[in-house]
Amino acid sequence: MATTETEHPISRITAGGGYQLLLRLRFPNRRGMHGKISTVLGEHGADIVDIDIAEADANIMVRDFQLLCEGEAQARDIVAAVQAIPDVEVEMASDRTFQLHRRGKIQVQNKVNIRTNAELAHVYTPGVGRVSMAIHDNPDAVWALTIKPNAVAIVSDGTAVLGLGDIGPEAAMPVMEGKSMLFKSFGNIDAWPLCLDTKDPEEIIAICKAIAPSFGGILLEDISAPRCFEIEDRLRAELDIPVFHDDQHGTAVVVLAGLINALKIVQKRPEDLKICVLGVGASGVACSKIIMNYGVKNIIGFDREGAVYAGRKEHMNEAKVWFAEHTNPEGFDGTLEEALQGADMFLGLSGPGLLNPQWVPAMAKDAIIFALANPVPEVMPHEVQGMARVIATGRSDFPNQINNVLCFPGLFRGALDAGARQITEEMKIVAARAIAETIPDHLLTEDYILPSPFNEEVALRVAAAVAAEARRSGNVRKQGSRVFI
Amino acid sequence: MATTETEHPISRITAGGGYQLLLRLRFPNRRGMHGKISTVLGEHGADIVDIDIAEADANIMVRDFQLLCEGEAQARDIVAAVQAIPDVEVEMASDRTFQLHRRGKIQVQNKVNIRTNAELAHVYTPGVGRVSMAIHDNPDAVWALTIKPNAVAIVSDGTAVLGLGDIGPEAAMPVMEGKSMLFKSFGNIDAWPLCLDTKDPEEIIAICKAIAPSFGGILLEDISAPRCFEIEDRLRAELDIPVFHDDQHGTAVVVLAGLINALKIVQKRPEDLKICVLGVGASGVACSKIIMNYGVKNIIGFDREGAVYAGRKEHMNEAKVWFAEHTNPEGFDGTLEEALQGADMFLGLSGPGLLNPQWVPAMAKDAIIFALANPVPEVMPHEVQGMARVIATGRSDFPNQINNVLCFPGLFRGALDAGARQITEEMKIVAARAIAETIPDHLLTEDYILPSPFNEEVALRVAAAVAAEARRSGNVRKQGSRVFI
Repeated sequence: MATTETEHPISRITAGGGYQLLLRLRFPNRRGMHGKISTVLGEHGADIVDIDIAEADANIMVRDFQLLCEGEAQARDIVAAVQAIPDVEVEMASDRTFQLHRRGKIQVQNKVNIRTNAELAHVYTPGVGRVSMAIHDNPDAVWALTIKPNAVAIVSDGTAVLGLGDIGPEAAMPVMEGKSMLFKSFGNIDAWPLCLDTKDPEEIIAICKAIAPSFGGILLEDISAPRCFEIEDRLRAELDIPVFHDDQHGTAVVVLAGLINALKIVQKRPEDLKICVLGVGASGVACSKIIMNYGVKNIIGFDREGAVYAGRKEHMNEAKVWFAEHTNPEGFDGTLEEALQGADMFLGLSGPGLLNPQWVPAMAKDAIIFALANPVPEVMPHEVQGMARVIATGRSDFPNQINNVLCFPGLFRGALDAGARQITEEMKIVAARAIAETIPDHLLTEDYILPSPFNEEVALRVAAAVAAEARRSGNVRKQGSRVFI
Repeated sequence: MATTETEHPISRITAGGGYQLLLRLRFPNRRGMHGKISTVLGEHGADIVDIDIAEADANIMVRDFQLLCEGEAQARDIVAAVQAIPDVEVEMASDRTFQLHRRGKIQVQNKVNIRTNAELAHVYTPGVGRVSMAIHDNPDAVWALTIKPNAVAIVSDGTAVLGLGDIGPEAAMPVMEGKSMLFKSFGNIDAWPLCLDTKDPEEIIAICKAIAPSFGGILLEDISAPRCFEIEDRLRAELDIPVFHDDQHGTAVVVLAGLINALKIVQKRPEDLKICVLGVGASGVACSKIIMNYGVKNIIGFDREGAVYAGRKEHMNEAKVWFAEHTNPEGFDGTLEEALQGADMFLGLSGPGLLNPQWVPAMAKDAIIFALANPVPEVMPHEVQGMARVIATGRSDFPNQINNVLCFPGLFRGALDAGARQITEEMKIVAARAIAETIPDHLLTEDYILPSPFNEEVALRVAAAVAAEARRSGNVRKQGSRVFI
């Protein structure tokens, strides 16, 4: 890939061509060093797009080289080759993804300018004293006069981050910042990440309760099971702002949305379905619960030990006991392969490659497969092409992506707008319906059961449906006086 | 004040002329209602600047009236008069300060746009997974790849807010949001307010420790004494990010800055001074400590019970015992009036009107008075005009305002830039010197010992001095590898 004279480097960068590598090199400020570096870069196939100076004095030169190359492997070669040049130190090497993460992805923005003492006196002391006293005299006014009505805390302990497991609170930060961006971008909500250096459920509960005055809602994120169940249940009971564990319920809402549209295509009714669920962790339980609330009667769950049934003694926990008692009406205790015979749907929330494609032809006609393990699903779509009618995954590079971002920004937007005290099961179901209905029936196909996250109608429809349901059920805060003078 | 045809209402609003009153009125949507309302408004001296519709159907009309009037008293009359109109309901009444606070003063802003799936994949899953793993593999990278290096938590329990006392965490929010705005405006720091629903020092300490992974520093704010001492001491010992109780040390830094410049005017040396401090709470102790570190030997403190001296038994606490042991070298146990005889400075951090102006003439020549009780100082400047050479207060409507905003944005900017592990006593002293030195000696006068908060040099100078001192003392984090590919 060679640079042409007529093509501006920036357009190539933003066009995303090739792999972008930024090197910050520190070397002695003497003749010949720059040529030596350029030569090595050229020999290793790096295309210099831009050069900048980060620091310089009579002895030292620190330069940023913006390079294009073929991919990560070549980038590592280039770094190694440059590190091998005598007197050259690689201070920084990063690619586009890392560059986008430099010093984080979100920031605070003032809504009002402070340019003069008069403006300062309005937003800070002495003016702010009147506002504080108005809230002191009328506590409900915190919803009118502070960030609370639009602020959500994203709380994680970093124990179950993406598919990466227990990577700790610091390493969880980029994910939570990403979540904050999605809140802002798709729901215009101000969400701040709080990654906690504790795994103690009691302490996490205490912290969420203590910070609640500053937030209108709490999104629990990437907290491992079974602690996530207790934390969410307790906070829902003890706080009067919405608390929502996205890994459970966000996934559940979008799975239900996908199921609603898949059922339109296969023309089956929820009460007639037999569904095998592989993975009875946080999201497996939540998905099964919402699907049952939607009318499905016959769900059989499987974990590493096999079928989950009432009376099973081994490898159970509180959530699985609940699950066993509320699913599997016939007490099936065979294998997944056996259960799939005649089943209408496979729902996987487990691990890579766990669904054997050879089991799929025995499923009922027009089978539905949601293989949601990420990044490698329980079965690759091409392996069951033609055997199942509708196939969904968690990936953006296949059709029918089950993506939580379809749910949480609109759901919280609606809950905040209505002044909801919590997210009820009904609010989740109307959210799922709203997502599903974003695609008009005449456009539905096997490969298009869920809208794009970039379809701006999704969050608007979800928010409107959720707010309406919250108001209908009366599960909303009454607004007090707004006479502040 | 009458509206003229040629003057656009908005320009009048932003010009700040008169008192602005916004009324949202709900009334039946029928002929004559609007005229009735306008008539009442006119009769009570309200000048209608703008009218908008908030909600309307066949039965109901909700309109926003933007009005100008003379002041708050008249505004209350107007509201009462409108409320008295049959069928008219005042849904909202607020003035400019309250309008500026509507739904809070800060928000989250994304630093990167999300417009396509490709961009989404960089900032969220799957791209973000590599960034999280880079931090997991190299924990120091959290300082390069997340918001942490620029993020500060503003933590308060709402127990000592401004001069308002224990008004609770919700009512403290507008103040903390204001603080966040000042951080952004003057230090380009992203500070998020966390007002806590607990007064238990152990719980506040535990919360600050738990949230520390997400922040590069913690500003403690408006936490009442003596709990604030323990909380700060423990957090300084147990965390390796800067923790700073602004009410103590922010005030102390600016007091020292003012003292440095006042001493240039009166041409005295710190070691020769006798200073009487009224108020031995959080800020009184912190101010005395920094002044002593600057070289002052003879400080005598007074609380409600009189002089604080070594061996005093009544009304002591841990902080006062420390204070008694480190000040008042002659063990003075008389009255403030007696102590002021021959004193070079009165420093008040107490309550309104507590310094009798008749005591001032007995002070030493070229006396300095810092009367910092807010909003009403220990003595009004005009009461001691001519008796004292330099007079400072906490108010912006007198010369020489002791304003914390001169300190904390630049102080944290410098500490974050240097990767400081804590704010040391030396960093505070260089911050005070930097504030003082912003005014060149030839411009110093009795009425100009401190720069304006809007002098952009202040934060830059403070940040540079603090960062240099942190690096000099070696009290900074070592930066690990920045090779991320």
